[in-house]
Amino acid sequence: MVEQEVNQEKKQRAPENTIFVGQKPTMAYVLAVITQFSEDAKEVHIKARGKSISRAVDVAEVVRRKFLQTVNTTVNISTEEIQGERGKLNVSVIDIKLTK
Amino acid sequence: MVEQEVNQEKKQRAPENTIFVGQKPTMAYVLAVITQFSEDAKEVHIKARGKSISRAVDVAEVVRRKFLQTVNTTVNISTEEIQGERGKLNVSVIDIKLTK
Repeated sequence: MVEQEVNQEKKQRAPENTIFVGQKPTMAYVLAVITQFSEDAKEVHIKARGKSISRAVDVAEVVRRKFLQTVNTTVNISTEEIQGERGKLNVSVIDIKLTK
Repeated sequence: MVEQEVNQEKKQRAPENTIFVGQKPTMAYVLAVITQFSEDAKEVHIKARGKSISRAVDVAEVVRRKFLQTVNTTVNISTEEIQGERGKLNVSVIDIKLTK
């Protein structure tokens, strides 16, 4: 229970079953997705912003091709406004939903 | 007519109404999409591979937000095998369909 609370604090902006893809190697995120599914998640969201979007697609494709061939993929794209050093910036966002 | 033939030769692998996103600035591809729609295309595909995938998402988002607010977006991701220097490589592909 305590561990769960600590985890939730770490991933403040992450709703349950969401993997935020950043600069780590692709396989780190693949493992995170597989772990979620092995813990009985019915769907997992893979999210990324800006240049990490291509890695998020890699993650989803590796999961589908190498681990869970039967998974369904639904992709949404949108734009978020973030606070950059010189004012507000628009950044593209991808949300890949994998459903068992 | 001659010009059309030359164009078709240039974009050999591009089916009609498909914009392949690569290394050019985002706005070059945005302009290409807008041009397709202004020539009465009902749908335009924005395609990219590997690291260009994030730019393809930027292109679709700029088109939707700044030019054609009513456009519908459908995103598909897949994997293609390409011939690299040291054998075959798997590369992720995105296909963003914009429909008027």
